[in-house]
Amino acid sequence: MTRPPDAHADTGLLSPVRAGTPVEEAVCDQAWLQAMLDAEAALARAQAGLGTLPQSAADAITTVARAERLDLRSLAVAARETANPVVGLVQALTRIVADADLTAAEYVHRGSTSQDVFDTGAMLVATRALRIVRADLDRTATALAALAGRHRDTLMAGRTLAMHAVPTTFGLKAAGWRQLVLDADQRLGQVMESGLPVALGGAAGTLAGYLEYAAIDGGGRPEPGEYLDRLLDAFAAETGLARPVLPWHSLRTPIADLAGALAFTAGALGKIAVDVQSLTRTEVGEVTEPTAAGRGSSSAMPHKRNPVLATMLRSAALQVPVLATGLTQCLLSEDERSAGAWHAEWLLLRECLRLTGGAAHTAVELAEGLTVQAERMRENLDLTGSQVVSERIAAVLAPQLGKAAAKQLLTWASSAAEKTGRPLHRVLAEAPELEGRITTRELAELCDPAAYTGAAGPLVDRALRA
Amino acid sequence: MTRPPDAHADTGLLSPVRAGTPVEEAVCDQAWLQAMLDAEAALARAQAGLGTLPQSAADAITTVARAERLDLRSLAVAARETANPVVGLVQALTRIVADADLTAAEYVHRGSTSQDVFDTGAMLVATRALRIVRADLDRTATALAALAGRHRDTLMAGRTLAMHAVPTTFGLKAAGWRQLVLDADQRLGQVMESGLPVALGGAAGTLAGYLEYAAIDGGGRPEPGEYLDRLLDAFAAETGLARPVLPWHSLRTPIADLAGALAFTAGALGKIAVDVQSLTRTEVGEVTEPTAAGRGSSSAMPHKRNPVLATMLRSAALQVPVLATGLTQCLLSEDERSAGAWHAEWLLLRECLRLTGGAAHTAVELAEGLTVQAERMRENLDLTGSQVVSERIAAVLAPQLGKAAAKQLLTWASSAAEKTGRPLHRVLAEAPELEGRITTRELAELCDPAAYTGAAGPLVDRALRA
Amino acid sequence: MTRPPDAHADTGLLSPVRAGTPVEEAVCDQAWLQAMLDAEAALARAQAGLGTLPQSAADAITTVARAERLDLRSLAVAARETANPVVGLVQALTRIVADADLTAAEYVHRGSTSQDVFDTGAMLVATRALRIVRADLDRTATALAALAGRHRDTLMAGRTLAMHAVPTTFGLKAAGWRQLVLDADQRLGQVMESGLPVALGGAAGTLAGYLEYAAIDGGGRPEPGEYLDRLLDAFAAETGLARPVLPWHSLRTPIADLAGALAFTAGALGKIAVDVQSLTRTEVGEVTEPTAAGRGSSSAMPHKRNPVLATMLRSAALQVPVLATGLTQCLLSEDERSAGAWHAEWLLLRECLRLTGGAAHTAVELAEGLTVQAERMRENLDLTGSQVVSERIAAVLAPQLGKAAAKQLLTWASSAAEKTGRPLHRVLAEAPELEGRITTRELAELCDPAAYTGAAGPLVDRALRA
Amino acid sequence: MTRPPDAHADTGLLSPVRAGTPVEEAVCDQAWLQAMLDAEAALARAQAGLGTLPQSAADAITTVARAERLDLRSLAVAARETANPVVGLVQALTRIVADADLTAAEYVHRGSTSQDVFDTGAMLVATRALRIVRADLDRTATALAALAGRHRDTLMAGRTLAMHAVPTTFGLKAAGWRQLVLDADQRLGQVMESGLPVALGGAAGTLAGYLEYAAIDGGGRPEPGEYLDRLLDAFAAETGLARPVLPWHSLRTPIADLAGALAFTAGALGKIAVDVQSLTRTEVGEVTEPTAAGRGSSSAMPHKRNPVLATMLRSAALQVPVLATGLTQCLLSEDERSAGAWHAEWLLLRECLRLTGGAAHTAVELAEGLTVQAERMRENLDLTGSQVVSERIAAVLAPQLGKAAAKQLLTWASSAAEKTGRPLHRVLAEAPELEGRITTRELAELCDPAAYTGAAGPLVDRALRA
Repeated sequence: MTRPPDAHADTGLLSPVRAGTPVEEAVCDQAWLQAMLDAEAALARAQAGLGTLPQSAADAITTVARAERLDLRSLAVAARETANPVVGLVQALTRIVADADLTAAEYVHRGSTSQDVFDTGAMLVATRALRIVRADLDRTATALAALAGRHRDTLMAGRTLAMHAVPTTFGLKAAGWRQLVLDADQRLGQVMESGLPVALGGAAGTLAGYLEYAAIDGGGRPEPGEYLDRLLDAFAAETGLARPVLPWHSLRTPIADLAGALAFTAGALGKIAVDVQSLTRTEVGEVTEPTAAGRGSSSAMPHKRNPVLATMLRSAALQVPVLATGLTQCLLSEDERSAGAWHAEWLLLRECLRLTGGAAHTAVELAEGLTVQAERMRENLDLTGSQVVSERIAAVLAPQLGKAAAKQLLTWASSAAEKTGRPLHRVLAEAPELEGRITTRELAELCDPAAYTGAAGPLVDRALRA
Repeated sequence: MTRPPDAHADTGLLSPVRAGTPVEEAVCDQAWLQAMLDAEAALARAQAGLGTLPQSAADAITTVARAERLDLRSLAVAARETANPVVGLVQALTRIVADADLTAAEYVHRGSTSQDVFDTGAMLVATRALRIVRADLDRTATALAALAGRHRDTLMAGRTLAMHAVPTTFGLKAAGWRQLVLDADQRLGQVMESGLPVALGGAAGTLAGYLEYAAIDGGGRPEPGEYLDRLLDAFAAETGLARPVLPWHSLRTPIADLAGALAFTAGALGKIAVDVQSLTRTEVGEVTEPTAAGRGSSSAMPHKRNPVLATMLRSAALQVPVLATGLTQCLLSEDERSAGAWHAEWLLLRECLRLTGGAAHTAVELAEGLTVQAERMRENLDLTGSQVVSERIAAVLAPQLGKAAAKQLLTWASSAAEKTGRPLHRVLAEAPELEGRITTRELAELCDPAAYTGAAGPLVDRALRA
Repeated sequence: MTRPPDAHADTGLLSPVRAGTPVEEAVCDQAWLQAMLDAEAALARAQAGLGTLPQSAADAITTVARAERLDLRSLAVAARETANPVVGLVQALTRIVADADLTAAEYVHRGSTSQDVFDTGAMLVATRALRIVRADLDRTATALAALAGRHRDTLMAGRTLAMHAVPTTFGLKAAGWRQLVLDADQRLGQVMESGLPVALGGAAGTLAGYLEYAAIDGGGRPEPGEYLDRLLDAFAAETGLARPVLPWHSLRTPIADLAGALAFTAGALGKIAVDVQSLTRTEVGEVTEPTAAGRGSSSAMPHKRNPVLATMLRSAALQVPVLATGLTQCLLSEDERSAGAWHAEWLLLRECLRLTGGAAHTAVELAEGLTVQAERMRENLDLTGSQVVSERIAAVLAPQLGKAAAKQLLTWASSAAEKTGRPLHRVLAEAPELEGRITTRELAELCDPAAYTGAAGPLVDRALRA
Repeated sequence: MTRPPDAHADTGLLSPVRAGTPVEEAVCDQAWLQAMLDAEAALARAQAGLGTLPQSAADAITTVARAERLDLRSLAVAARETANPVVGLVQALTRIVADADLTAAEYVHRGSTSQDVFDTGAMLVATRALRIVRADLDRTATALAALAGRHRDTLMAGRTLAMHAVPTTFGLKAAGWRQLVLDADQRLGQVMESGLPVALGGAAGTLAGYLEYAAIDGGGRPEPGEYLDRLLDAFAAETGLARPVLPWHSLRTPIADLAGALAFTAGALGKIAVDVQSLTRTEVGEVTEPTAAGRGSSSAMPHKRNPVLATMLRSAALQVPVLATGLTQCLLSEDERSAGAWHAEWLLLRECLRLTGGAAHTAVELAEGLTVQAERMRENLDLTGSQVVSERIAAVLAPQLGKAAAKQLLTWASSAAEKTGRPLHRVLAEAPELEGRITTRELAELCDPAAYTGAAGPLVDRALRA
């Protein structure tokens, strides 16, 4: 029925959070290969622009540097010979350039080193992926803002340590989710704006090979500082990436920054997920995930509608921070290039991008389609009745009874109300300590949770203005 | 030249440590899919064996349950609807069974639940992968035993905190590497022998669905305890997996055990890698990685022979422990099935298996081909001359001078020897404190590092006997 | 009112899960110092037993090697000079031995190295801590066995992906918790029984210093292999620890094993915690934590009774696995002693022991005092009414209607029941497909969740026998 | 001799990297307690400033809110009752306020909740610690700038994958270290400048309690939005912390930001450490750590001078990223306050601050005292002789021979030079391919590594200007 899958290829079977989402295509092996080829072509064009490489060679390299012309699997397997895929890529690229233009083949990877090509390619992939992620965060934030506005005053139980606390509103909760999404977007934006840099250092980070070829190909030895500036600027311009202060073969700030911002993003979306799951529980039933054909159905229990979007978000949030740790640890890159720490980054970085990107895409669907059961929220709040406002009553009674006595009275009354099923304000009304101090009606008003949401409304207003 | 790669598939480009190694094929998406199909077929056969499912249906299911008949990518994308790939798999399998035998289609996934199929499949994949890993560990240990035996008395500098310490032998170092490999193999063996279990619980771990269908299909309600025993035994027998004490949908001991043993294995191989790198350094040059066509060459520096095998080993050792952490954390699986913790395991487990498997395969090549430069070891040892045996001399002189005075004398003499370039025993010979206490010849003998390897030899003997 | 606390000392303020629990005293700085002193004394006694050190010296060292005679803070600060606390400890111990017996002072730390003393001390601390942990796991398992037995048939909703699934029993849940505790205990037991080893290698793992002093002090050079065997056996006997195959200064199997087993234990207890929290939620209310004076009260809400024991368990389960990762990574110990990986272990190991020990102690209290609200469990189960048994009904109807049609019917009927609030069996009774095929009474029986707990009971029986 | 240490207190024995450094005092239990008391006092003053609490009460609270007046250990143990130390702290503080001013005692913790006090205290501690860390990073960067400037042209071998690559300069290496330190400082600065926020939300993040007491104590119900603004501003002003957009009880951005920046900082310093260790190796000997009394000495080998500062730095760099992961994962804080994720942060955050602070302090000593052995660098470079410039020669010869042929020639010549010990330029001079194309003298010049440092010098200049 279908063509036999490769015996080695992965297509997302074990990672539903990202299967079929846009970020997948941006970070897959072929995209990574293309990004490295883009780096090679941009380098040739940059050198051509500086007059140290024939423009025709740059054109030829640019034309043929297409991932679909190389054999991905062969490159992957050949990478074992040098512990990185660039040596094989350069050989293969040189061959196909030579097929088109024999002279141009001499100028492939001119003066360069594997890490320049790999890291520049990685930054291109990351840039492309982050754009997708941020667009999805933007949509998510917009949807959450609408939820927060719509439910600014929708009363619900605040919950702390798994138990009802004082009341809150669903608007405040949604505004908090949105704030986290904005925080994530801001952190990703910072990484992009401070600039994911090109990698350009040559064999040991001194650019010596580039300078040497500039002398050979450009007809004279350039002044190193000036050439360095011009080449870096040109390479940055050709790739659209930033210019780093120093070659960063073993100064891994860009990787650590990506790791940090991606872990934050996955975690922020994970917070939304655990809240949605908490509110989805059968006994709680305060929110429902959006329905779609087949979505959330169970193989064993046809009646179930599982919170699958939140489940996928949470699965990403459990994975990305540990993957990101591995990247942060790669700051410990010894010498001018690490024998292992660099190589440990690649898979981890790709999965961080892919899982976070899948999560952001999933979050859009969740935020745009979440159904809020306002009546159920109110019913649940009534389960603890006026007990959730005992904080308030204790406060009101404290000036008359003293803080300790007020607290003691409330503890007793709450317990009595729970045991007897009677409303708290009635139990309190019979307390001898309160006789003559407060009317039953005043007590009833105090016990109304709807009047005890504090500054929830203004907090939503302020957050949405932010 | 080659067919265009899928826009989503990964083929190992970012993971040289495993690209093209045998473990890859054992754990790829297709293999995982096949393992889940194997679980479905084994379940049908087990039920048929118990008389609660027609044998013809079990046969039909077994015959068509082939991964190549399903479309991997469609299943991967469809998995987003339910957050796991089994629902789609069951639908697709049911369709192809129906094509072959319409009645048999009713019996696909009979009484079962997604997690039973996924987890049983995962245990089959893990079992197959571990067999490969252990065979490679076995070959590695054998090669290291040979190295240790051959170099039982090959003198070299012991090194602590990056500096020469007292002498040791390469045999003792290789015996230590082997011991770690044996430890790893033993821990993996323990996981396999204690038994990777089938998953069989049904929708909430009570086997209710299986019992219900047994009643329906088997012509009468079986005694639950008896049927449970028979079905578990039959399913275990059909899959070759173990029988668990309890359904483990949210009791994730097998996953945590795998994580622990795999992280240990990757780390153990990583220790070999960092030692090889330490000894490979240009200034040290005491070992050389095996050469092979293209192996270890640099894109920029044709003269270099990089320790690429050790580099790949170390890259795996930096990744697997963090991935494994994610798995250990999944012990926090709430309720009868977690909404996210289960789903976070899949990718992490596969990468742990694949990276560790790739590392074990790489370790064979390293251990079997490592070249030892015994002369260079001796030359390096001579760099610190007799200073490395100052511990010994301090010990010998302590009874006569007192421990503090002996230590002080040695500190002074070492420093003087270093500054003047004179042998330590000559500097000491002129120390007034030693006059009449020890001859120059005795001092020269004491200063010979070859005579100061302690029990290195017997330690190697004992370790190799272990 | 109280004496001013040290400006540097920690007393558990940030770690309630372990504050005041027995494990604290077993692993604190003073206990660690004492364990290292115990190692020094045991070494002296072992050497004395072999005749290479005066018995009087061993006695003197043993007598004064008391932590309370040394200044902990001075040792801690002095440790910065050598990156480990043993150099200062040996100096301080030598001084106090000299005060008691000037000759004996020469024999302190005879032939030894810092890591032998530190690691042996660490294994003594770990052994003492694990005994406490295991005793608490044992009590926890006993309490959980009682719970499982008592509630073998207590009906409750199974929950998967946060939603009601088919019914289960609380007994089965408690039996699962117990199984995890037994698994943890078994893994800790394995670490102890395989034997936490003494560390005895001398400066570079060859025991050269020990042999040298044996020659000097014992009146003749012993045969290295024989002396090695005798010294290791004697040291193991004096400390009660095991004899390792090889010196393990940079072969960190014992540390990785401890890390793995402790992370597992903390995670296993964390699973109980997340389940208890799930069942404690205000809307669920199926279990209640034991009450004690002050326990679980809120500073703001006097009526609340928070699940604080589960909260502390979960806090440990979130910390220990990441701490343990750091320990596993320390397998990458280069050379004969790592310049940093060894040093990174200490704090992590102590916290793993302490947090896990605190968690085990907390788990006893939780397991022994947990209150089960069986009526509430039944009420909650009725929320989804007969829908949770739709799996069953689909199974029963499938032979008559076909699997797909049966599933479709149930999906429709569940939805109709939910919308109308009518019992599922009544909705189904009106389905034209079922006319004449099944009576309303049969449908009502099928819809009774109490009759649909599968093999839950026999599973409990088998687990408790295990 | 000294007073017996507490049976539970830790004083840094297992953590030399921080023992006795300034950050210790800033983050210890007592400091944390004081910071929480500072939060209580600041809250009272803020409320007094708004006229909703008597100024005399605020004064009384401020006066007695001193850590030395409370019993740290009692609070730590009492924290087990509520899973946090604030409930006990409030009780104790209320008692000592009452001793001084009975009325004032009513106003302690007015309207507040444990998490407001704990989190505000934590932010105060973090702010104080970060100031210390940043001052030490500043000193480190200054020292590294001096090193980079002084050694702008100090030739040394570039090293990649553990082997010599093309030459570089020590100045460029030191400039890279400084750049990482500046990156770390910039990231910590960003966390501080974006503002570590006060926590002010009350029981469920709505500020309801604060508003209620404002009504009771201030003689009338304030407009919630206005009061919220005023109270937050006043509390921020009193503490010197920032005002958050929303209460962040379960929106843990500040914690995740701290975790990220601290892990980065520890990792950045760890990179310096692994480089120093690489260069300190006995066979390399290119740098030496600063000497100080006792520093770096070995208990077994009096002659050794271990790189203990780098060792301590590396030990921190191995610990902090894993600890920080735990903090990032705490973004998954369910509901309005997590039952465990919040509690898991405290110990991890303190250790991240303390280890990073200790590392920064250690880095100052290392950077200010590092000795560079320029001659040894040159000698080591000569080990690979002209082979390290083979990249250059290949480049020069490529236009004449073609790239492949040039590379092949160099591979052969390098190998021949290595085997025979003859200089590369002499081997090449005899190659028939080069006859008539290049003179021996030109070859000799090409083979001089000193002329092949590329743009190392200008890179240093640019980095130091940055």
